[in-house]
Amino acid sequence: MSAIDDLATELARLPGIGRKTALRLTYHLLKQPPEQSRRLASALERMVERVHRCSVCANLTEEDPCRICADPRRDSALLCVVEEASDIGAIERAGEFRGVYHVLGGRLSPLDGIGPEELSIQQLVGRVTRVNGGADRVREVIIATNPSLEGEATALYVQRQLAPHVPVVTRIARGLPVGGDLEYADGVTIAQALSARRAM
Amino acid sequence: MSAIDDLATELARLPGIGRKTALRLTYHLLKQPPEQSRRLASALERMVERVHRCSVCANLTEEDPCRICADPRRDSALLCVVEEASDIGAIERAGEFRGVYHVLGGRLSPLDGIGPEELSIQQLVGRVTRVNGGADRVREVIIATNPSLEGEATALYVQRQLAPHVPVVTRIARGLPVGGDLEYADGVTIAQALSARRAM
Repeated sequence: MSAIDDLATELARLPGIGRKTALRLTYHLLKQPPEQSRRLASALERMVERVHRCSVCANLTEEDPCRICADPRRDSALLCVVEEASDIGAIERAGEFRGVYHVLGGRLSPLDGIGPEELSIQQLVGRVTRVNGGADRVREVIIATNPSLEGEATALYVQRQLAPHVPVVTRIARGLPVGGDLEYADGVTIAQALSARRAM
Repeated sequence: MSAIDDLATELARLPGIGRKTALRLTYHLLKQPPEQSRRLASALERMVERVHRCSVCANLTEEDPCRICADPRRDSALLCVVEEASDIGAIERAGEFRGVYHVLGGRLSPLDGIGPEELSIQQLVGRVTRVNGGADRVREVIIATNPSLEGEATALYVQRQLAPHVPVVTRIARGLPVGGDLEYADGVTIAQALSARRAM
């Protein structure tokens, strides 16, 4: 196989990139100075070499523990449980949360063969009970799995595992997104926004 | 900058890939076995090392001359002029053309500072006159630049340069695409399809 086909085949393995887009990207790179392709190649290699899981929260990091777990200004008594490390980025960008995280590594999905053992749920329970035995009592766990069917099932399962060990287990709110339009919102979201209404 | 941000930044330089998609691709690669990222990195490096321009037609190739120019079964008296090397792939996939190619390296676009000197038009004229001095007379040049405003202007300019040296200079046909729908075709295409009508 030629070097051009070879690169297009590798690019086409990425999600959302079909054969045609892969070829277009390959030809684009061929028109750029070779430094651009070399920088992309070395960024890939450095990423594979350096990035690993934080031993405390399973966040993707170059240090261990990760920058968030190592930060003394973060409130380690407030734990936010997410499905993927990429969710941490989304929450951090919101700039509201000052606690620490725990990455499950996915969500329960029996049809895909993903049960509780495939996720880091026991590590979460272990982390919470270990910490609670010591000085740093975990005050609250916020379950921030996605508001999907599997995400909800995962939230329920995690809540049941944590309930004996943590004073408060909460779930992030569901409702209309800010800037959203009632007219275009789906029925389930509207139903949830109504049932979770709050006094003004 | 972290290795994750770094990779996302490099991916976001690709056309059609924004910051969010770049992050999504990065996290996707982080979830795959590291071999996938390494294979992509080495495909990029091999592409940069091995692929260069054919000294005859300016096609992108690993050999020199390229496989098409070197193929004795191709008709070297029939020359197809295209804007980019990627256009050769499109024509080859159609499986109709048995001549050879010449890649201009773009199209005339005065607003972007691309004049005749930026394209390989003089090389094309040189190639045609050199060949015509010898045994291998070029019988016909088909100009297959894109059917856009700049593509048409380029076709006209190239035709004028070649006319004194080549018996026949033709332009690929414009009209309704096969499988297209008259109802959804634009007016310019319909007008061209009408004016280029042929007896049945």
